[in-house]
Amino acid sequence: MLRQRAVPARFHLGGNVARRCAITPWEQKCLVYRASNVRLLHSGQDVQKSVPGIRKASLRQLLYPRQVRFVSGKPLPQRRSWILNFVYRSAAWLGGSIVFIGIGVVGFFLYDASTYREDLSFRDIQVSEIALRPRTGGPKNLPIAEVQIDDDDSSEMKSQKDKPKLVILGGGWGSVALLKTLNPDEYHITLVSPTNYFLFTPMLPSATVGTLEFRSLVEPIRRIVCRVKGHFIRASAENIEFSEKLVELSQKDNNGKEVRFYLPYDKLVIAVGSTTNPHGVKGLEHCHFLKDIDDAQKIRNHILTNLEYACLPTTSDDERKRLLSFVVSGGGPTGVEFAAELFDLLNEDLTSHFPKLLRNEISVHLIQSRGHILNTYDEAVSKYAEERFSRDQVEVLTNSRVKEVQADKILFTQKGEHGETITKELPMGFCLWSTGVSQTEFCQKVSAALGSAQTNRHALETDTHLRLNGTPLGDVYAIGDCSTVQNNVADHLVTFLRTLAWEKGKDPETMQITFGEWREVAQKVRKRFPQAADHLKRLDKLFAAYDKDQSGTLDFGEMRELLMQIDSKLTSLPATAQRAHQQGQYLGHKFNKMARAAPGLRVNDVRDGDLDEAVYKAFEYHHLGSLAYIGNSAVFDLGNGWNLTGGLWAVYAWRSVYFAQSVSFRTRILLAMDWAKRALFGRDLMNW
Amino acid sequence: MLRQRAVPARFHLGGNVARRCAITPWEQKCLVYRASNVRLLHSGQDVQKSVPGIRKASLRQLLYPRQVRFVSGKPLPQRRSWILNFVYRSAAWLGGSIVFIGIGVVGFFLYDASTYREDLSFRDIQVSEIALRPRTGGPKNLPIAEVQIDDDDSSEMKSQKDKPKLVILGGGWGSVALLKTLNPDEYHITLVSPTNYFLFTPMLPSATVGTLEFRSLVEPIRRIVCRVKGHFIRASAENIEFSEKLVELSQKDNNGKEVRFYLPYDKLVIAVGSTTNPHGVKGLEHCHFLKDIDDAQKIRNHILTNLEYACLPTTSDDERKRLLSFVVSGGGPTGVEFAAELFDLLNEDLTSHFPKLLRNEISVHLIQSRGHILNTYDEAVSKYAEERFSRDQVEVLTNSRVKEVQADKILFTQKGEHGETITKELPMGFCLWSTGVSQTEFCQKVSAALGSAQTNRHALETDTHLRLNGTPLGDVYAIGDCSTVQNNVADHLVTFLRTLAWEKGKDPETMQITFGEWREVAQKVRKRFPQAADHLKRLDKLFAAYDKDQSGTLDFGEMRELLMQIDSKLTSLPATAQRAHQQGQYLGHKFNKMARAAPGLRVNDVRDGDLDEAVYKAFEYHHLGSLAYIGNSAVFDLGNGWNLTGGLWAVYAWRSVYFAQSVSFRTRILLAMDWAKRALFGRDLMNW
Repeated sequence: MLRQRAVPARFHLGGNVARRCAITPWEQKCLVYRASNVRLLHSGQDVQKSVPGIRKASLRQLLYPRQVRFVSGKPLPQRRSWILNFVYRSAAWLGGSIVFIGIGVVGFFLYDASTYREDLSFRDIQVSEIALRPRTGGPKNLPIAEVQIDDDDSSEMKSQKDKPKLVILGGGWGSVALLKTLNPDEYHITLVSPTNYFLFTPMLPSATVGTLEFRSLVEPIRRIVCRVKGHFIRASAENIEFSEKLVELSQKDNNGKEVRFYLPYDKLVIAVGSTTNPHGVKGLEHCHFLKDIDDAQKIRNHILTNLEYACLPTTSDDERKRLLSFVVSGGGPTGVEFAAELFDLLNEDLTSHFPKLLRNEISVHLIQSRGHILNTYDEAVSKYAEERFSRDQVEVLTNSRVKEVQADKILFTQKGEHGETITKELPMGFCLWSTGVSQTEFCQKVSAALGSAQTNRHALETDTHLRLNGTPLGDVYAIGDCSTVQNNVADHLVTFLRTLAWEKGKDPETMQITFGEWREVAQKVRKRFPQAADHLKRLDKLFAAYDKDQSGTLDFGEMRELLMQIDSKLTSLPATAQRAHQQGQYLGHKFNKMARAAPGLRVNDVRDGDLDEAVYKAFEYHHLGSLAYIGNSAVFDLGNGWNLTGGLWAVYAWRSVYFAQSVSFRTRILLAMDWAKRALFGRDLMNW
Repeated sequence: MLRQRAVPARFHLGGNVARRCAITPWEQKCLVYRASNVRLLHSGQDVQKSVPGIRKASLRQLLYPRQVRFVSGKPLPQRRSWILNFVYRSAAWLGGSIVFIGIGVVGFFLYDASTYREDLSFRDIQVSEIALRPRTGGPKNLPIAEVQIDDDDSSEMKSQKDKPKLVILGGGWGSVALLKTLNPDEYHITLVSPTNYFLFTPMLPSATVGTLEFRSLVEPIRRIVCRVKGHFIRASAENIEFSEKLVELSQKDNNGKEVRFYLPYDKLVIAVGSTTNPHGVKGLEHCHFLKDIDDAQKIRNHILTNLEYACLPTTSDDERKRLLSFVVSGGGPTGVEFAAELFDLLNEDLTSHFPKLLRNEISVHLIQSRGHILNTYDEAVSKYAEERFSRDQVEVLTNSRVKEVQADKILFTQKGEHGETITKELPMGFCLWSTGVSQTEFCQKVSAALGSAQTNRHALETDTHLRLNGTPLGDVYAIGDCSTVQNNVADHLVTFLRTLAWEKGKDPETMQITFGEWREVAQKVRKRFPQAADHLKRLDKLFAAYDKDQSGTLDFGEMRELLMQIDSKLTSLPATAQRAHQQGQYLGHKFNKMARAAPGLRVNDVRDGDLDEAVYKAFEYHHLGSLAYIGNSAVFDLGNGWNLTGGLWAVYAWRSVYFAQSVSFRTRILLAMDWAKRALFGRDLMNW
């Protein structure tokens, strides 16, 4: 009955009606079309004949059917002048919008009012005696935190008390990915970190110049720990007593007094990250690093103090040029992004309120030891970045190594065209040191304690299940920048051959391996060393290449050589947030699975052995690509030769990626606010 | 022709039409009303007869004329079920809203894209030689900054070069009010301040606990200076050479190297503010002050470090209670607001993620030397604040004076009920010292240099035209916390009587003053000392009271006594933002007027004499009221016994006042964002 059907529009309006109403031919058409649609007319009817009562106002009504009052539905008044009409309707729209927004504002205030707590009920709470007065013990006879003061805070927390203790050292990408992946009910989790926030490190360069606020890059670690009903202790890890399963922690109070204590663990995850690599260069006390919010704040202050000092009337011209010479040592993503952000600050914001002389005397220099900046990226990407920088008047000094940093200049050697080394010096007012990562003191101690099981000077070695080499299986894991996954495929050859040899009743070292057996070995290698899979695609070719005597079989020596050649092709994983994140997620999934498998294993009295391998696959890294901001443009290296470079649209894409990866709804809102702030008000050139 | 007239609704709808269309009697009425309004019907016509072609859909159309598509104006489809209709229309609205918001977002992105500068044109700029290599001179033979490096930056700046040099020391309330009032074209203005931002001090307590961000309270001073085409030098004032009209400035660079130089002035405004008053108490190095962003940041860090330390398993119960004992010394607005904000933080945000034990062991103490907190406010307001605090478990210790602060406790004396003094001690983990203001080192130097002209130990004395006593008239002014306006009415008695005495040919000290003459004197007093006007209302009563011999005249002694009694009633102006603001505005208006009067004075060769008094009235302070936040409630003292106290509505009012007073559009937006952030995400319990 109420159905609406499109009726063919074959009507005409009586000429005298049209004349009487003074409407245009186009309006006539519209009118007829509308009229047919609302079924005032039938096919072929004449408007004048069929609706003799129709007059001007009603025609208007049909022409502009929306022009009625919002609430009452009454038609809007028609005035003689279209200006008056327009003014009246605009005012009505404005009023309507104000009411609408007003409702929103009132709603927000009501919500806001509900967030103030008025009840102050202190209830008696339970805290176990042993949490308040922990027993002492361990090799150094320190207090042992077996029970924590918030273990009895709620029934949910209580239920965690007797679960296996999982201790996580560090609050970076790896730890947070692990926390976000873990099921809330499997472990009694304690996170230990010297900072009480998670820092979104990839955007730290933006914060140094005030494009982003510090608060937008951090999330309180307690909010993240909360999800798994875990605990947080702000302390630094000092040592691990592997035999007694204790971590030694330290913390300083406001007066500088230090306390130390032990935290017991059943499972320990080391994710403490790395420090800056000094590369043995003298005078790094004159440089800034960029690892933490603190660093970013110091950098911001230093830059602005230099600018202010350059404005003083007593500053000589040479001194001004020195103060405004900004040097970045290291052409990796951090160095490049910092140089780009610095350039943005100087180019976009400095000119408006500082003396123009400053802008003319500013110089930005980027010192890179390799032949190109962003040398881990695709070559096209490197080139694009270098071109962009040369346009932006950022001086890129490649093939250059810093020799020494002094308070007011930097000495570096540069390779000449003919391979000769020239020593140069650059006056500088600011230097950022971002030349790769190095092991923390804590990791060095751990590594030393494990002796020959740890042979890498730069990182803690783990097997492909991310278990720290040299520790009891399933006790200690290491992830992120502080760790490296050992890809010693050849060393495990005997293990791979053992089952085969046992079946044939032979010694693995003397047996001949057929192609079929090689396939089985390759399968095992793939499972244990997922990163090697890429190099094990053409098994027949590999087999043929190493079967030098063309006997159709490989002996132990040939086999070993084959695997060693694969080893040599495996590179160590990059020290990036992406890797730490994947490792954290991997551990989270594995721990969840192990916890679910635990009852079954207990029933079957399985306590020893390679539980990790029994339960879960080995860790495999999937590179998703790299990206970098390079000053009103951005680059994306998507791997396998795919890459994208571009201007503003790439900047927005770059922001979108990080916006999506951001840790919480809170940080996303804050990031969006910051970007809007930059557009509206520019960066704030203030420091304290 | 297009006029719309209400037509009396005397129609009826043919019964069979109504039946056929299945509409209700109410809908019939509506229909008839609408139809008459859009003139489909004439008075008395029957719908069925006059419009035989009308069918259901068109009736509906008349009934609900808004239900048409937004863009095309076609009617919305009618479905059998109201649920389907509702769903369809909601979806349409949602889609419409998304499109609408989408347009807004795209618009913002377009605007954003326009804010990135791509052109990097460096143009040659003019800088005069003398700006780059200033001549040295003055008593200490330091460089003299006669010309600045941005004096030639633009034609606008150039036009300022030869105008009288106005130097303003300090970048607080007084200076900013002065800058905002000054006409841009009258003076060559240079602002000197050790910080490159203006700080909105009244909300600083909110920033200590993260309710507001630091950035929201500050505005780059260069942006404010920009309006008057002025200059900014980040430096500290060290001394003034009054005879040569030079200010000695100093600044340290990042390596700690200090430079000093002179800045010449024609007019100098001292608005350097004040420091915290130590009241001679020992151990203030264990306390925090709250004067600057730096202080607020330190406080935030200290509070959070204490909380984190209190969570450690090694912290004993006594130590935890000490760490969580927060002491505020000083019951003025700053102390009270800080205590309130601290309590909010602990009550609203701490409980959610920190161990519950902490909340139970926290204590906040407020030590006040007077009998009430907020003792400069109305008594009812003080009482309300005290009641509120006692409900909020903030301990208010009145009639108490701090004797000594130690690293872990605070010693104070308290007056007992019988007037006896008891010494008490309070373990504390944090202490804020906010007990009034004191003179800065610079002001002490200035005061000492002026010798007997400056008798006040606490502030620089000015006359009622805000000219610094002891300096050539019209050279040096002092405003804000660093200054006090001398109300020595009696000292000026001879001046007031001089004209009268001259007319009569008498010695002022021996003449007899009649009531008529007294009225003239009172008029002069009112003009010169506007603050005294309140006490000069009943001239006849005053005259009668001091005419002790009832002679109908006053002699010089009686007159003097009368004025001294008025002096004693005049209180010194409060050290508040409000006062500094009014003084800044006053100076701004006066300077504008003086600049406009300058050509006339030059023509008439008027160079000496009291130009200020000739041109402009004396400064008069108008108290507009005081307000304070006291923890989910706020108080307003509007003066003359009027006051308001209340809960959340008062908090919103308190915020509105500061929102309105905020220095720029930028800070207002940021404040609103911060308040929204608090409601959505709470305060961030992080520190670095």
